[in-house]
Amino acid sequence: MLRGLTSAGLGKVENDEQLIKLASQYGFQAVDVDALGLVERHGVEGARELLKSHNVVIGSIGLPVDWRNTDENFQQGLTKLTQAAAAAASLGCTSCCTYVLPATDYKAAHFMALATRRIRICAQILGAYGIRLGLEFVGPHHLRTAWKNPFIWTLQETLDWIDAIGEPNVGLLFDSYHWYTNELTIADIEALRADQIVHVHINDAPDVPVSEAMDGGRIYPGEGVIDLGGFLRALHKIGYQGAVSQEILAPAPTDSPEQLAQRSKAGFDKVFQAADL
Amino acid sequence: MLRGLTSAGLGKVENDEQLIKLASQYGFQAVDVDALGLVERHGVEGARELLKSHNVVIGSIGLPVDWRNTDENFQQGLTKLTQAAAAAASLGCTSCCTYVLPATDYKAAHFMALATRRIRICAQILGAYGIRLGLEFVGPHHLRTAWKNPFIWTLQETLDWIDAIGEPNVGLLFDSYHWYTNELTIADIEALRADQIVHVHINDAPDVPVSEAMDGGRIYPGEGVIDLGGFLRALHKIGYQGAVSQEILAPAPTDSPEQLAQRSKAGFDKVFQAADL
Amino acid sequence: MLRGLTSAGLGKVENDEQLIKLASQYGFQAVDVDALGLVERHGVEGARELLKSHNVVIGSIGLPVDWRNTDENFQQGLTKLTQAAAAAASLGCTSCCTYVLPATDYKAAHFMALATRRIRICAQILGAYGIRLGLEFVGPHHLRTAWKNPFIWTLQETLDWIDAIGEPNVGLLFDSYHWYTNELTIADIEALRADQIVHVHINDAPDVPVSEAMDGGRIYPGEGVIDLGGFLRALHKIGYQGAVSQEILAPAPTDSPEQLAQRSKAGFDKVFQAADL
Amino acid sequence: MLRGLTSAGLGKVENDEQLIKLASQYGFQAVDVDALGLVERHGVEGARELLKSHNVVIGSIGLPVDWRNTDENFQQGLTKLTQAAAAAASLGCTSCCTYVLPATDYKAAHFMALATRRIRICAQILGAYGIRLGLEFVGPHHLRTAWKNPFIWTLQETLDWIDAIGEPNVGLLFDSYHWYTNELTIADIEALRADQIVHVHINDAPDVPVSEAMDGGRIYPGEGVIDLGGFLRALHKIGYQGAVSQEILAPAPTDSPEQLAQRSKAGFDKVFQAADL
Repeated sequence: MLRGLTSAGLGKVENDEQLIKLASQYGFQAVDVDALGLVERHGVEGARELLKSHNVVIGSIGLPVDWRNTDENFQQGLTKLTQAAAAAASLGCTSCCTYVLPATDYKAAHFMALATRRIRICAQILGAYGIRLGLEFVGPHHLRTAWKNPFIWTLQETLDWIDAIGEPNVGLLFDSYHWYTNELTIADIEALRADQIVHVHINDAPDVPVSEAMDGGRIYPGEGVIDLGGFLRALHKIGYQGAVSQEILAPAPTDSPEQLAQRSKAGFDKVFQAADL
Repeated sequence: MLRGLTSAGLGKVENDEQLIKLASQYGFQAVDVDALGLVERHGVEGARELLKSHNVVIGSIGLPVDWRNTDENFQQGLTKLTQAAAAAASLGCTSCCTYVLPATDYKAAHFMALATRRIRICAQILGAYGIRLGLEFVGPHHLRTAWKNPFIWTLQETLDWIDAIGEPNVGLLFDSYHWYTNELTIADIEALRADQIVHVHINDAPDVPVSEAMDGGRIYPGEGVIDLGGFLRALHKIGYQGAVSQEILAPAPTDSPEQLAQRSKAGFDKVFQAADL
Repeated sequence: MLRGLTSAGLGKVENDEQLIKLASQYGFQAVDVDALGLVERHGVEGARELLKSHNVVIGSIGLPVDWRNTDENFQQGLTKLTQAAAAAASLGCTSCCTYVLPATDYKAAHFMALATRRIRICAQILGAYGIRLGLEFVGPHHLRTAWKNPFIWTLQETLDWIDAIGEPNVGLLFDSYHWYTNELTIADIEALRADQIVHVHINDAPDVPVSEAMDGGRIYPGEGVIDLGGFLRALHKIGYQGAVSQEILAPAPTDSPEQLAQRSKAGFDKVFQAADL
Repeated sequence: MLRGLTSAGLGKVENDEQLIKLASQYGFQAVDVDALGLVERHGVEGARELLKSHNVVIGSIGLPVDWRNTDENFQQGLTKLTQAAAAAASLGCTSCCTYVLPATDYKAAHFMALATRRIRICAQILGAYGIRLGLEFVGPHHLRTAWKNPFIWTLQETLDWIDAIGEPNVGLLFDSYHWYTNELTIADIEALRADQIVHVHINDAPDVPVSEAMDGGRIYPGEGVIDLGGFLRALHKIGYQGAVSQEILAPAPTDSPEQLAQRSKAGFDKVFQAADL
């Protein structure tokens, strides 16, 4: 597995170039960045060289399409998607991710039908470039009632949705925080096949009741109560070999990006050691 | 368009053979029957001859698969589906239909994902035999709250679901009663293409507020308040040429099947005349 | 049906603006143009106004993707496709077409697999914008051996391929010249459903043996030996209501575009009259 | 990986019950049998007990559908497929396989279109029961010209076809004999993901030029020239954990099934040892 960073949790990171530098400096092997932006600023060769010279690969890009609202919004994102996919593929990245909110203001069944079609189209486009699409189920309890109607938030629901989408290149973005807030177990991970997982996020949770863990209240790996050693060990056991990227959604920290990257490194060291990895 | 009968509304019809005889006797050209049962009792040649000698074709068969509950239930119906599809195809029938309840005890979004996958599999199997699958949206208001969670019941929701299923041989079962209880217009029909409609049901509604029209309170065409002339004219205008089958879901009538078939004929005469057909 | 023009057969037409003017002037109701180009030059509102003020609609756009060679070529076209589809949709066009060469230098079965996947992706993208994709089978005999291996050229093969692609928005571009060079009949058209036809081309053939009719040797409707009255009558009978566009692939004529448009009009008048349309 | 047996190579094995007994007796953990036959003869519980008491699982069942000829043939197999899939699933088997002949008497591109649609339908049906479908590419050179037109036989062609089929549960049946006769390398295996492989066959080849290795001239693992140690090591390296089943297509041997099972065991011991497994 590759240790990965996103900019979430590193404070005021200026841009993806700084993120790449920090990742490299603190022993990370992957970064979740905007591949298209890199290519636009450096060209394909320049961006490849930038990544290579820092010994990092791209863990995943974000899905640049609004599939949660109107058809017009959705259509407007598709050109960007083809460009982002081409850029990602040119830099060797084979993963693109999006999150699934656990509730919606739309009528839930109808929105599921709309979302199924839209995500299938995104998956087909990504597949043309050899890229897989990871869907992130979102566990924090407070979000389940943050919009009018419950949508989906469990692992099983998400797997069933992936079956409904029906494309070979769609899988999970598996985040330890959502694993924890869904009160899933090691056995739930071990029941998966590695190829069902497109990307992994790692975060820790504060010592509050599970039902009170806030989506924006995440903490650094190793500093909280989630069994991240067990989490990583199970992923390793089923053969997952991709990136495991930290994504600390939390109030803005005051420390410098360097201090926060160092703190992240210490956290990764701790939990990877706990996993015997 | 072909005038069609189902056994619903004809009282104590003994079997499909009697339905075929009644249809023939009262000038109907199509019957909605169990094709597999006919083939099992008469053989393919015998069943063909039975239909031909009565000048009727099969309008549609019902989908013999429980896609509304567990995966086990669903799986158990697939063998029957292949047999029913083969029988229907052997008798020249190219339509199979199922209805969509407007509410569900399952979590709506999750059930939509499950249903999408299951209906797609059914559609693929039917497609192997050249048969289309019609989905019937169900309008009566009281059913929308008859189970815990709202599912889908409008024309647009159903069209969007058909898009999500994504198979070329899936379309609508369009029932005048659901058109009426959804308070749709002639223009809504005219906005459809004929190929989006797999099968049509025709029924009338009593003179009660729309929101109080009960699913099991349907009446004979021409005896109620629905503009069935406009309904048929619009279907004709967009080029629909298939069967239009009566399906009177209502308390058991005491009249004989012959009397009820005669009454149905009178109703069809009236509304087809109103449509200038 | 709408009478339509492409620039093929009109000599030195300067641009789509001139084509629109000529179409309007000589009583045509549709033009096959580059929707994206129009939008780029006039804006969406300007392009709409241009079409509207000339009383023409867009019959179809061409598929701006090279699906016949490498994966790289294919990928490079997808951004253009999203842009072209958005432009076409904004101008009310719901049809996009591509032709299928009857032979290939690639191994035929392998190329069919590659082409199936690529065309499915194109269809999904077009479907996101409400646009259908028409596949044009190509009949002239000399092309069947113009590359190393036979591919597909018959109506039935193309329908079977459309089934293999499996997307609801894929159908035929039906060209009278390929109907003729495949030696198909009126009955073959009448066996189709209107919704299987996305777009129609109309051309005539010189009085040479069918097997010697060259792809680039087409002549104006009504000036040759194809039963275009029967062709149009059959299309009308099955309910086709879209555009019928002339596409005279032939050596460059010396007459002016105006003269050629007038000649085209005379041809359309003749064959539509022969079809009682 | 599980050591597996098929009846091919064991001489006059009477039935699957004897195959199960032999497998158990000689240290094999998997058998490729007719799951439906077992269930029909023993009931689900009896068949489960039979397998369990012999410490074997089912490696794979064969696809009981003729997808290589007419649509009628194909349709007739689908009922059997639903039954076979239900039986296999009830016994814990999640794999079903079919082979792909490298040539065809049909026009190759058209047959590819037909086969794509048919295999997709089979995959959908199998998927309803949680079963994957493995496609076996077939390498022996003499078969490439055994029918009129070349079809597909390489690994890459088969992977591209799997993409064209587009279902998540379709992968490869990877046979060492076809790997060898295609002159593929260890690196070609290492470039695959484990989830792309549904099932594995293992056979050895005699010491003749590769182009002269006959499909029906296979020999026991470890007795020939294929680098089966490298083959197994590469599969292990990419994480393949399923069955590896011997399938010796060869003239009928005169030894008893017991002698041949013992010989097979010796061969497996040798090549698994060579692979350090």
